[in-house]
Amino acid sequence: MESVSLFAPASIANISCGFDVLGLCLDNVGDLMHLEKSNKPGFRITEIKGQDLPLETEKNVAGVAAQALLKAYKEPVGFELKIDKRIKAGSGIGSSAASAAGAVVGINKLLGEPFSPLELISFAMEGERLACGSAHADNVAPVILGGFTLVRSLEPLDVIPLHSPLELAATVIHPEIEVKTADARAVLHNKIPLKKAINQWANVGALVSGLYQEDYDLISRSLVDEIVEPARAMLIPGFDQLKENATQAGALGCGISGSGPSVFALSKGMTNAHLVAKSMAEVYDKIGVPYEIHICPINPNGVQFIEPKNK
Amino acid sequence: MESVSLFAPASIANISCGFDVLGLCLDNVGDLMHLEKSNKPGFRITEIKGQDLPLETEKNVAGVAAQALLKAYKEPVGFELKIDKRIKAGSGIGSSAASAAGAVVGINKLLGEPFSPLELISFAMEGERLACGSAHADNVAPVILGGFTLVRSLEPLDVIPLHSPLELAATVIHPEIEVKTADARAVLHNKIPLKKAINQWANVGALVSGLYQEDYDLISRSLVDEIVEPARAMLIPGFDQLKENATQAGALGCGISGSGPSVFALSKGMTNAHLVAKSMAEVYDKIGVPYEIHICPINPNGVQFIEPKNK
Repeated sequence: MESVSLFAPASIANISCGFDVLGLCLDNVGDLMHLEKSNKPGFRITEIKGQDLPLETEKNVAGVAAQALLKAYKEPVGFELKIDKRIKAGSGIGSSAASAAGAVVGINKLLGEPFSPLELISFAMEGERLACGSAHADNVAPVILGGFTLVRSLEPLDVIPLHSPLELAATVIHPEIEVKTADARAVLHNKIPLKKAINQWANVGALVSGLYQEDYDLISRSLVDEIVEPARAMLIPGFDQLKENATQAGALGCGISGSGPSVFALSKGMTNAHLVAKSMAEVYDKIGVPYEIHICPINPNGVQFIEPKNK
Repeated sequence: MESVSLFAPASIANISCGFDVLGLCLDNVGDLMHLEKSNKPGFRITEIKGQDLPLETEKNVAGVAAQALLKAYKEPVGFELKIDKRIKAGSGIGSSAASAAGAVVGINKLLGEPFSPLELISFAMEGERLACGSAHADNVAPVILGGFTLVRSLEPLDVIPLHSPLELAATVIHPEIEVKTADARAVLHNKIPLKKAINQWANVGALVSGLYQEDYDLISRSLVDEIVEPARAMLIPGFDQLKENATQAGALGCGISGSGPSVFALSKGMTNAHLVAKSMAEVYDKIGVPYEIHICPINPNGVQFIEPKNK
């Protein structure tokens, strides 16, 4: 195999109670990438469409992730990457994770899959380190593994793929404003009340149980965040109204995607996810915030290879 | 049916990362109770063997729990209870929970089961309120439901039965010293570092996933408590050595049962649980702490009715 084309999906990190540990993979929303083997050793990005991002390997999240992989591979090999960047940077649905994960999954395929999914996650995390200063895994893990994932530990890296009920669907509304990750971090306190922490881990445990049992009521009751959401909600225009509308329209739960500004809702079935989308769009239509909206199932597969079209 | 005999099992609350929310039901260790219908309305305890506990209904955890049930039942009915108390009070394996849960499950049976398990848990919690000042559910829930349980919320009460892998076995060592619940509470801080809280909810989520997937390695990696155990370990003689020995002997994990002083270990299979017991006993044999030890499977059923012997 000399080249691959692939779809690198967007993702939602945190998922209410699961701050810094839970993530899920979206369908339909994502970047397109094309990787080719090259006789010249090393990794080069030859084209980026859709966004104004650096081509230099060491300044690009896909480049940094790819270099982490090549360093571990040791033998001299060469690859060239073209990116059609369709996830907006800074939207809070894992734009950097998609690029970083897509690059390493693609290279791994062209090398005959010498690396495990966990190793690929660790390489892609280097892209996250470039993007936001810390090598977190809660977006790259679901992009590489698909479905819902739980990052149990970063050192050593321990990522658990969770069961993802097939009927779960996501609605994501992206208000076209900027929320700096640094600001989103700054509103958090270093210490939190034990009582709230207990509620949070009760909800995380219950949510995981709800996923395995495909108990949508339990999933709904557990999609609660008493710690991070109350602090960050003020950074997102109309958050409370979005949540109220989504819930009224039948969403199982609604929260901040990653560190925002996108807001996600989970629903049982695509029909509900569309109704929820409509109810959320009304909020921004009314207050005049420009937005884009995504409605999709949970993607159980993560990065997907695209067969070349027959000529 | 005019009378029932039942076995009200002991339980382990907290289970490392699951402070205040997780619990599991033990087998073999528990109280024996005999309940009879009476023509005289109200609830009376006529005999307590094995321990010096008050017979007065309002001073006895079983009595208080029973009264909560009778109050909800509304019609005048009468019951008499005999208890053969085999779980030592203050041992940290749910002595009060067994009495409270056993009483309400037994009365419910004699009444034709008008109450749901969740209602029974809420009645039994009144016994816990008498015993320790707060109506917690992390012991009574597994005693009533069996297996592993998660208390997602107290108000409203929301208890989730979790999947319990059949091969899991528990070892519990009870050093015969007193740890007051008030002291065990006093060593905890009202605020905890966010970073540690995140690790804790990651472990809770991972442990629940490990239970559903019957992934013993994952269960083992998740049986971690960075918050409560470090504070309480000093209240228990030889705790660090017990944990080290248990781990060396093959335990999946080891921690404080409830608020102590009992220390539990979980193992894959009864053979391992016996080896772990031996390794833990050596610690107390060496330092001269008197103890008793229990080795048993996880009890998937909770309170069990005992058939009367054929005459």
